[in-house]
Amino acid sequence: MTDPIRLGIAGLGTVGAGVVKIVQRHGSLLERRCGRPVEITAVSARSREKDRGVSIKPYAWEDDPVALARRDDVDVLVELMGGEDGPAKNATEAAIANGKHVVTANKAMLAHHGQALAEAAEDAGVNLRFEAAVAGGIPVIKALTEGLAGNAITRVMGVMNGTCNYILTRMDDAGLTYEEAFAEADGLGYLEADPELDVGGIDAGHKLSLLASIAFGTRVAFDDMTLEGIGRISIDDIRRAGDLGYKIKLLGVAQMTGRGLEQRMTPCLVPSASPLGQLLGGTNMVVIEGDAVEQIVLRGPGAGEGPTASAVMGDICDIARGIRLPVFGQPAQTLRPAPPANAESPACFYLRLALVDKPGALAKVATVLGENGISIDRMRQYDHPGADAPVLIVTHRTARPNLDTALAALPGTGVVTGAPVALRIEDV
Amino acid sequence: MTDPIRLGIAGLGTVGAGVVKIVQRHGSLLERRCGRPVEITAVSARSREKDRGVSIKPYAWEDDPVALARRDDVDVLVELMGGEDGPAKNATEAAIANGKHVVTANKAMLAHHGQALAEAAEDAGVNLRFEAAVAGGIPVIKALTEGLAGNAITRVMGVMNGTCNYILTRMDDAGLTYEEAFAEADGLGYLEADPELDVGGIDAGHKLSLLASIAFGTRVAFDDMTLEGIGRISIDDIRRAGDLGYKIKLLGVAQMTGRGLEQRMTPCLVPSASPLGQLLGGTNMVVIEGDAVEQIVLRGPGAGEGPTASAVMGDICDIARGIRLPVFGQPAQTLRPAPPANAESPACFYLRLALVDKPGALAKVATVLGENGISIDRMRQYDHPGADAPVLIVTHRTARPNLDTALAALPGTGVVTGAPVALRIEDV
Repeated sequence: MTDPIRLGIAGLGTVGAGVVKIVQRHGSLLERRCGRPVEITAVSARSREKDRGVSIKPYAWEDDPVALARRDDVDVLVELMGGEDGPAKNATEAAIANGKHVVTANKAMLAHHGQALAEAAEDAGVNLRFEAAVAGGIPVIKALTEGLAGNAITRVMGVMNGTCNYILTRMDDAGLTYEEAFAEADGLGYLEADPELDVGGIDAGHKLSLLASIAFGTRVAFDDMTLEGIGRISIDDIRRAGDLGYKIKLLGVAQMTGRGLEQRMTPCLVPSASPLGQLLGGTNMVVIEGDAVEQIVLRGPGAGEGPTASAVMGDICDIARGIRLPVFGQPAQTLRPAPPANAESPACFYLRLALVDKPGALAKVATVLGENGISIDRMRQYDHPGADAPVLIVTHRTARPNLDTALAALPGTGVVTGAPVALRIEDV
Repeated sequence: MTDPIRLGIAGLGTVGAGVVKIVQRHGSLLERRCGRPVEITAVSARSREKDRGVSIKPYAWEDDPVALARRDDVDVLVELMGGEDGPAKNATEAAIANGKHVVTANKAMLAHHGQALAEAAEDAGVNLRFEAAVAGGIPVIKALTEGLAGNAITRVMGVMNGTCNYILTRMDDAGLTYEEAFAEADGLGYLEADPELDVGGIDAGHKLSLLASIAFGTRVAFDDMTLEGIGRISIDDIRRAGDLGYKIKLLGVAQMTGRGLEQRMTPCLVPSASPLGQLLGGTNMVVIEGDAVEQIVLRGPGAGEGPTASAVMGDICDIARGIRLPVFGQPAQTLRPAPPANAESPACFYLRLALVDKPGALAKVATVLGENGISIDRMRQYDHPGADAPVLIVTHRTARPNLDTALAALPGTGVVTGAPVALRIEDV
């Protein structure tokens, strides 16, 4: 196996240019590590002339990524265009149909079409790898699929959208409103063209659905995920949670329970002193828990040219070295459809309410909670210049349906003004 | 490749028993993930009758691990006996000579004989894997060798001896002396039979030497490492460092510099707020820096039955899946002998001195430092009930030889009593 491995790169944005740079810079290093040269033979992108800080002149050009994927002198399609359908999917399918391996950073495509693509790749005897699709430079797919293969995985958690974590961090440390922090992130170019992919939790949800598939041997089930973005997090909640010793994170959690597969990507409170609580800015973190390994925490840059290209190159090197693995860690045909959990697992909750300033108001709230089997761990009332009294409640462990029933009943007490905020406190 | 992969396990201590339990517990999971059954055919240990919490009756017994390694019905020798020479090395060599793969947790053997064993394994076309030898359950060998293969690695750092970190943590949080914390760790069974392997930094140094080889494409060079244990760390230094915003850790650092390969396993100060500074108790952490990925931090349990067995199983699953890799990430014949750096890279240093309580004493110390090109960033003098005044100094970035010259000159001032303490402050 000393023939070069020949790459066709489709998509020359930030990550694609980063891959070209690494291949150009580290030719001899890659050859030593892979046992064969790593070469780029052809590329495809929207513009041939754009300045990318790296020359693509040595490579054949294709206007059409599908034509690139079919070239005889390409062994691996490196798909870095993005988008769940369209050119990315067409090129990926063409590569597989023509017996070529695929390395992609495309979480949306895999979250929606992972099962079909994995079956096609395995039928064709080619690799479909996607380390760069999840948590940027952190080799988390490899850790989960290979390093921890001896474990029954019990839970996977992660902060996997750097833009959301940047916004929450800036609200916390600079006292910005959500709108101000969002505008700042936008100005820095951190947001996707459709910002809802970031702040709505969709991008991070895509990533979590891929981790869940590997962890639990189940088919990717993005549509079953409980998704909630960070748009309703206020600076008030960040401050109050901080007073109680917590940070608010857009946290993904996947776990297999007696009630089915639980997948959530929602704002949660985590202890300020925990590794997740201490995560600042654009950094990502994934926590993997297994029956043998206990808990592993992986932390690193979640985006950017170098880190994402590093993940792409890891997959390319694996393929060059002859490593062949099922796409989701076991044959796609053996992945089970997982019944979605009918309710999230019990937890403590953070509640923020505004009460009318009348004697007995708090008692009415406590009664509603008690009637729904919710006991109170801590309660704190804040000074209030206005008519309404802000009250914080941390509950003991509670089933979510009980909480929802109580929340629905609170307006009927006549003492709660505005909509209560309820956030899960995750055990981390 | 649907024939079972057949394991011969040599050594049934904590980790060996853990591997047996995983194979027994996860038969169908392992088969699904590996594409073939994982079976134990034979075992070898000091005592056949010892209660290990798991039955070894189904397996053939060998008194001699070398005989185990040679058995026709063994595909993989799982070497969990330990010891740099003797039975572990003999059995490993016998397995390789008989065309069997080897999975080992034996850092001492690889630190001393890694090059010869790697060459033998690669000549024989078998795998020699050692994920469990470094940082327990953390899949760090895999991350470095495979996941980050597209990077020129610039630095690897780690806290990789849980016992030392436990002792330092207890001195810090419970105010124990070194001797008290050592005795506590001993009572909990945390110490090796020869405690110097732990507290002298040797065990952690073995691990660092293996990471350095993979990271920099160099032959394992444990003998060139700067090694210093935690025995001279006092509760005073832990308190004073804490006042200045630092924690003291037994920190391994490997980096390739213009002056050669720098490998240090020494007590260092790291910022209290950094991931390394926040690491408590027996947990391990490895930080990997590469030219593309920037910085990855991996954290997890550094020892124990489950975590270490998890790492062993990861290697076994790789071999069962047909993954074949050079032992240190590139062919052993291509590993370069690395010239050891003639001095460690410049850093800021923490100095603790006791001065006689006389006017001008501090000026004399400052003069000696200044004469050696060492400028002072911060200085703090503490209240002192006795005759000597404790003084803390944090230097600006300084070349180590200058510091050593200054330290040697301090007694000549006549104002310094006792031996000064100097600890490196690592940039993390």
